[in-house]
Amino acid sequence: MKFSMDRKHFYEKLSIVSRAISVFSPLPALSGICIDVKEDKIILTGSDSNVSIRSTIVFSETNQLQIESTGSIVVESKYLLEIVRKMDSNRIEFELIDFTKIRLEGNNGKFELNGIQASEYPEIDFQKPLTHISLTPETLKQIVSQTAFACSEKDKRPVLNGVNFNVNGDKLYCSGTDSYRLARKQINLETSQNINVTIPSKSLTEVVRSFNDDVKNVDLYIDHKKAQFIFDRIIIQTRLIDGTFPDVERIIPNKFIAKMEVDAHEITNVVDRTNFIRNDKVHLVRMECSATETHIKTSSSEIGNSDEVLSDCTYEGEDLRLSCNGTYLLEAIRALGAERVKMEFSGLMKPIRIMDMEDDSTTMIIVPIRSYD
Amino acid sequence: MKFSMDRKHFYEKLSIVSRAISVFSPLPALSGICIDVKEDKIILTGSDSNVSIRSTIVFSETNQLQIESTGSIVVESKYLLEIVRKMDSNRIEFELIDFTKIRLEGNNGKFELNGIQASEYPEIDFQKPLTHISLTPETLKQIVSQTAFACSEKDKRPVLNGVNFNVNGDKLYCSGTDSYRLARKQINLETSQNINVTIPSKSLTEVVRSFNDDVKNVDLYIDHKKAQFIFDRIIIQTRLIDGTFPDVERIIPNKFIAKMEVDAHEITNVVDRTNFIRNDKVHLVRMECSATETHIKTSSSEIGNSDEVLSDCTYEGEDLRLSCNGTYLLEAIRALGAERVKMEFSGLMKPIRIMDMEDDSTTMIIVPIRSYD
Repeated sequence: MKFSMDRKHFYEKLSIVSRAISVFSPLPALSGICIDVKEDKIILTGSDSNVSIRSTIVFSETNQLQIESTGSIVVESKYLLEIVRKMDSNRIEFELIDFTKIRLEGNNGKFELNGIQASEYPEIDFQKPLTHISLTPETLKQIVSQTAFACSEKDKRPVLNGVNFNVNGDKLYCSGTDSYRLARKQINLETSQNINVTIPSKSLTEVVRSFNDDVKNVDLYIDHKKAQFIFDRIIIQTRLIDGTFPDVERIIPNKFIAKMEVDAHEITNVVDRTNFIRNDKVHLVRMECSATETHIKTSSSEIGNSDEVLSDCTYEGEDLRLSCNGTYLLEAIRALGAERVKMEFSGLMKPIRIMDMEDDSTTMIIVPIRSYD
Repeated sequence: MKFSMDRKHFYEKLSIVSRAISVFSPLPALSGICIDVKEDKIILTGSDSNVSIRSTIVFSETNQLQIESTGSIVVESKYLLEIVRKMDSNRIEFELIDFTKIRLEGNNGKFELNGIQASEYPEIDFQKPLTHISLTPETLKQIVSQTAFACSEKDKRPVLNGVNFNVNGDKLYCSGTDSYRLARKQINLETSQNINVTIPSKSLTEVVRSFNDDVKNVDLYIDHKKAQFIFDRIIIQTRLIDGTFPDVERIIPNKFIAKMEVDAHEITNVVDRTNFIRNDKVHLVRMECSATETHIKTSSSEIGNSDEVLSDCTYEGEDLRLSCNGTYLLEAIRALGAERVKMEFSGLMKPIRIMDMEDDSTTMIIVPIRSYD
């Protein structure tokens, strides 16, 4: 096994597959990258057994890949990345020098690293599921940035650790919820499908992090056990989360007693400023809304209190005084990425709907908190 | 007590005094900033009882300070900084509203914070010691960046946690050592003095961090117990470290059996690349030097090994094979900030002297490590 290629290109591919590798790997071989050199291509694989990433390198003008002999080996990912990143040569030569040792050579330096035989690397089934939808990388990035933040990070209900992808006809609904808030994005598809799966939010974050400017299209293949994202000769495969995702449609209110329109920048700044005024670590924000003035208040007997009036804000409907989690409010408005947002209130202790004034594809819901002041 | 002033200017001064404040403060009052408003000035004080910082604010064109009434209070530093940083108004109004509560007002918002009465803040003696030297901020920055890194971080010999300032006539010698390496800077002074004190390296780091572009000169006042750095209406005062600093003059070799001249950038890159090849967490670097070639090698039975040849390097003298701590070598060469360095060898297990080829004011010494290969 021996090949040489452009160092930066090799590093880029290694770092993508290394994203799947966990420092707490169940098998020693899984802390490594499996490098399988065929006659006309190199296949790199990284996995933590839940998420697996495979990148195939074939000759291109930029990578100038030259394969001299075939073979396979598993090399500790963190050491391999460190060397390939820091070497000062443009090209790198990679050679298996005995069954479990590799040599990397650049200009004036050579490195030898201990490896593990590829036979000890677990078999990973990369077979492509049948159900297919196609997305642009921008759309997938938007889905992830607007829904994954709302997922639960606790282990109590695993299904809430993922974003639900629900396709009904030609509409895709992506939803993240931790049961106190909901973030939901609607996408129009070109073909009809029938899908209802929950993808771990961490896997989704890894997928969108792996995009570079060359990625023009992402193919998503799904069955009842796994999801595969394919782009740019890279396969990112993730297990799905078992369990029934809650019927979030039910939570979204459709009758409102009041409506506020506010500058998104102003309200996030006002809420963010009061972030340190906390009660039992919770950032409780009180909103006092009327047609004349809207106050954002916080209070903590230990720390102090705050009171700000929103300057660029209109309010219609019943006067309301309600409290909510300031962190949730902040994250929802930031994820919308809007200039102006509308907040619609369905009652004193009932869900608040927050949306971009210019774009109704994303719905944020947060539930008020009872407070006794 | 009531005053108003430019918010950014106030924030800048608060953040400088807050640097002295420790999260693990021995007294509750010491987690706060003491604000003492006089008729014509505001005195801000922060302290962790070892380092104390005092900043005096008087009216200026930029701060537009207006004092309405005098008084004093201690306010939790992290909350006060957070508010003043995040408020969106150009001016800020600060008022004591009862004995232990303050109000901050900007454009549309007001904050109230609980405080502590100034009478609970410890007395700190800011009296100026008599012995005085004057330095430019650039010189002091260079002293700190070239010596503090070599100080010990262990508690075993407290005197090694500081940089020794030794003035003999009109020469100032600043030395940091952890007993395995030494970093030493020589400065020419304009006046003669007689000083031999050891200043905690952490205090020195805080001093140079507090410099902004307006600082033209730093006055250093020293007695046998404390050192005061005065610049720009700011006093940073630190306790000295007791104990006799080792006679480092003795360690510096003056007879050499070999000399290497090398590109500083190349040797740091070569050593840095091998950083992950460690034995018992120590980055052991082997240098094999001869007139024809110099190799930098590392080896670890667990991880692998490396071998690089220095390309831009000349060597004169006996052939040598010796090992040293790669981290020490790297830090010494980086701290010199040189284009080219000369490394002079005094024997197989004897100290190595490393200096900038263009500037002999700084001397780095590292001691080789015995290795059995």
